Amino acid sequence: MKTIAIDMDGVMADVYAQLFKNHHADFGTSLTLEEVTGKEESIAFPNCRKHVFSEGFFRHAPVIADSQEVVKKLNNRYQVYIVSAAMEFPQSLVEKQAWLNEHFPFIQWQQMVFCGSKKIIKCDIMIDDHFRNLDDCDGRTFLYSQPHNKLADCGRHHRVESWKEIEKLLL
Amino acid sequence: MKTIAIDMDGVMADVYAQLFKNHHADFGTSLTLEEVTGKEESIAFPNCRKHVFSEGFFRHAPVIADSQEVVKKLNNRYQVYIVSAAMEFPQSLVEKQAWLNEHFPFIQWQQMVFCGSKKIIKCDIMIDDHFRNLDDCDGRTFLYSQPHNKLADCGRHHRVESWKEIEKLLL
Repeated sequence: MKTIAIDMDGVMADVYAQLFKNHHADFGTSLTLEEVTGKEESIAFPNCRKHVFSEGFFRHAPVIADSQEVVKKLNNRYQVYIVSAAMEFPQSLVEKQAWLNEHFPFIQWQQMVFCGSKKIIKCDIMIDDHFRNLDDCDGRTFLYSQPHNKLADCGRHHRVESWKEIEKLLL
Repeated sequence: MKTIAIDMDGVMADVYAQLFKNHHADFGTSLTLEEVTGKEESIAFPNCRKHVFSEGFFRHAPVIADSQEVVKKLNNRYQVYIVSAAMEFPQSLVEKQAWLNEHFPFIQWQQMVFCGSKKIIKCDIMIDDHFRNLDDCDGRTFLYSQPHNKLADCGRHHRVESWKEIEKLLL
């Protein structure tokens, strides 16, 4: 059975929705998708660092469309691991586990991995929105489209725009 | 640079010291090393499950002799990751990170991995006290001696009795 490592933030959890909402709360103005496209989140959203270290930021992130349905199907066909680079944000560890338990109850604790670097991850397939994670993977790599990576040439990685596209490719 | 995955409980953190202490607190009697040797911790210590799910159990575990000194030296020569199967114990995530920050301040968050299964870990060398973790590693594997594994044939794994022994073998 092939192993898939699936990223959380920007793949399962809609971090941009949280950043847009917090930006509006902080400044009273809304950023447009165009304004944040092609920029790292920390550049696009001036208060990004403050928010990602705040209680509740990860716990209350919305679920990305169709991820629940497709991850559930993948879970029947592949050895699925949810691999999140959570270590930078100590408060996120408990929040991320609670978030997974709530929104993806079919994912067991044995399938969860919280790390700093993903260089240590061994898998056949990786789905992630960051090049720094995909570049070290020897397997098949899918770049999940997000504004920060939207304008980049995805190189050897296969860009996917939605979970419906992943469903077609892997199921 | 070769990658080493080092387990926490039973390798860096003295879980047995905690279990012996808690057993005495619960029952007023002390178990001997002989009584617990060759038995899984959950069999040897009747209240084991209660304690490993209790607040503070991991946070206050003593450090295993010489681990700080030797891990520090390894950290200069290898790509070190601390890999702990922490996911079973949700309350342990924050405790384990705080424990590492206190006792191993030279270990960066990028080097920490909390997982459920270690099947997803890619490394050249693994140091662990459990066969279930070592058996899936393709690299060089060291079984850290602990009472629960003491009587078992270590098979293809190399049994080590102390951090001083690891130092001689890897440095």
